Amino acid sequence: MADAPKANAVVGQSGGPTGVINASLVGVIEEAKKHPEIENIYGAIHAVAGMVKDDFIDLGKLSADELEVVAASPSSAIGTSRDKPDKEYCARILDVFKKRNIRYFFYIGGNDSANTAHILNTMADEANFDIRSFHIPKTVDNDLLVTDHCPGFGTAAKFEACALMGDDLDNRALPGIKIDVIMGRHAGFLTAAAALGKQRDDDGPHLIYVPERPVSMEKFISDVDGVCTKLGRCVIAVSEGICDADGVTWAKKLAEQAEVDAHGNIQLSGTGALADFLAGQVKSELKVGRVRADTFGYLQRSYAGLQSSVDVEEARWCGRHAVQYAMQEDNGSVAIRRTGNGKDYAVDLFRTELKNVAEHTKSMPDEFINAEGNGVTDAFIEYAMPLVGELPRTGYLGGCPRV
Amino acid sequence: MADAPKANAVVGQSGGPTGVINASLVGVIEEAKKHPEIENIYGAIHAVAGMVKDDFIDLGKLSADELEVVAASPSSAIGTSRDKPDKEYCARILDVFKKRNIRYFFYIGGNDSANTAHILNTMADEANFDIRSFHIPKTVDNDLLVTDHCPGFGTAAKFEACALMGDDLDNRALPGIKIDVIMGRHAGFLTAAAALGKQRDDDGPHLIYVPERPVSMEKFISDVDGVCTKLGRCVIAVSEGICDADGVTWAKKLAEQAEVDAHGNIQLSGTGALADFLAGQVKSELKVGRVRADTFGYLQRSYAGLQSSVDVEEARWCGRHAVQYAMQEDNGSVAIRRTGNGKDYAVDLFRTELKNVAEHTKSMPDEFINAEGNGVTDAFIEYAMPLVGELPRTGYLGGCPRV
Repeated sequence: MADAPKANAVVGQSGGPTGVINASLVGVIEEAKKHPEIENIYGAIHAVAGMVKDDFIDLGKLSADELEVVAASPSSAIGTSRDKPDKEYCARILDVFKKRNIRYFFYIGGNDSANTAHILNTMADEANFDIRSFHIPKTVDNDLLVTDHCPGFGTAAKFEACALMGDDLDNRALPGIKIDVIMGRHAGFLTAAAALGKQRDDDGPHLIYVPERPVSMEKFISDVDGVCTKLGRCVIAVSEGICDADGVTWAKKLAEQAEVDAHGNIQLSGTGALADFLAGQVKSELKVGRVRADTFGYLQRSYAGLQSSVDVEEARWCGRHAVQYAMQEDNGSVAIRRTGNGKDYAVDLFRTELKNVAEHTKSMPDEFINAEGNGVTDAFIEYAMPLVGELPRTGYLGGCPRV
Repeated sequence: MADAPKANAVVGQSGGPTGVINASLVGVIEEAKKHPEIENIYGAIHAVAGMVKDDFIDLGKLSADELEVVAASPSSAIGTSRDKPDKEYCARILDVFKKRNIRYFFYIGGNDSANTAHILNTMADEANFDIRSFHIPKTVDNDLLVTDHCPGFGTAAKFEACALMGDDLDNRALPGIKIDVIMGRHAGFLTAAAALGKQRDDDGPHLIYVPERPVSMEKFISDVDGVCTKLGRCVIAVSEGICDADGVTWAKKLAEQAEVDAHGNIQLSGTGALADFLAGQVKSELKVGRVRADTFGYLQRSYAGLQSSVDVEEARWCGRHAVQYAMQEDNGSVAIRRTGNGKDYAVDLFRTELKNVAEHTKSMPDEFINAEGNGVTDAFIEYAMPLVGELPRTGYLGGCPRV
């Protein structure tokens, strides 16, 4: 491996915002400033869209205080994009890189972003223009391969846990059936995280449906009826990607005019249609009075002032490590390895090949989903609990002995 | 006034849960234990429904630690009810009170709850059964008369402020039009609170619509178009009670099968219909690509781990004061008087007549709404800002100079 070139670096934030993608950005910035090989650290405004348009800011000029405020903020502080660059798009980016002597590329995002980093690196090699291209993992869905978990998941999982803790207490106070629709097109991790705040045996969510397990409407109604018979109420966490028994998502069946983004994903968030449909089904099949449904929407990924302490620390660490790897290696993706769990939770970081992360996504493993396909296992709780940091304790008095 | 009787006390939580109604409950409990006139402090399970069914728990037995956990928890720890008691219902409650020698009644709720306290007190007087009947204010809507503001509002307002701070940053990262539908049937205070997190001149929400100002669809679309032309994006906070130009709510027009609760209120929450409708209108009228809409739903009133420090302290103080008043007076409602504002924010509590609070509700005063009817004034910000406690700072870098 040749010595790290003396050149400029660019960092971009891609795909959907998260609660800690800015912490990864700050990790890149603070580490880049330590290495004289990196002359300037530029931020690409709106990710690849800024790279292709030559739209950059100088991140090296931010004060320590500004960096801390950014690291604590949700969303993507330099803007993001859902553009999926093809070869021609990447060629134009490389022209800009050459013009600016950018030879370090750090891209924070999901598997599509790893793929972009891979394509850019390969095309640069072919053009004999050496760039060092690194991917830093980020998703709320937790669906990247290789890494134990993704920065961004822990904070979103904390949002779900706190939301369901409150929502379950609300449902105790005014009993009925409550359906909460949670983000996650293909992977159920975030919906499963709704279970993390359970403190009492009969706390909700009482039923959890993830995209990995198709469920017929008959089974869904029967499950809800069973919980209601036992507890007189039922709180349900449903993934936006929940599928009918034939494997087709309910959302797709409902979306007559499905909006499709550039990655070919059907746009499920930002609409109450699925929640309202499920509530309507429950209302008509079970003769219960009070049925409510909420769709959590964009709050799940961009709520201000709510971060998992563990997640934000790891996200920043991943950003710093990407820069360290770039001093030694040509390309790669930063991944997390869990080295201890429970009270001894600890992680190491390591480098993996871009193509290992770029090509596919991860689903919930079978061992995290119960046999009935309507809840999570202890193994999932053990996996996810260390990632959300501290959760509040809650009090409920309706179970006290009567006088 | 006769001496305070030596007897039992009951406390109930009525109407929709809030983030601090449990703090008021704990205020009642801790103060009641200081007064030997109160022999036992009972909690009525599910409010009047528990009183009429003789379903009580002994709140005097809770440990200090248990009380602190309850005070920090959202929702109504002893359950609530939307029953609206008539005279026959109240007569049955008084029978239970007589049987248990309950002569102190503390009811935490909105104006309907003040009315229940008033009816019970009047009927007890007529039956020569002296009870001391006190109302402790609680609403997320902030719509009670007399009091400067309601416990519960500050915490819900903080939720909205943090939600819009994050949502606006999300919209900067992926520009488009975003519509957020916020609780509040008749009063716009909570929707207006969406503005409290604004930190930069061009931060959203850029448009705010409250129930107090009817808006035609033409005006709404024209407003959104104007902001988009100027900023290339638009974040909108809309009350669930938003009215068309004819004064009829859009929600009512949409709700073919409106569900009506016992108080005659149309049930607007728990459905994405209004948000989806508004998004559809914007999409078809303005040819913009990215239009999203969220309905915040029940998270607004029962999110775990999120309280306004000011609100929770005042809520508890109101609970304590109700008990103190009951040692001196026959009945009343606790109200807040603001004695200083801004950095010198301070309040006093005082007693007002139940009927002053029971009969009507409050709307946003004109001086809090801008002339266009699509935003809030500085006077509103000055009024509401001290109530939410600390808000997070956020960082956004897209405005940095280009290199």
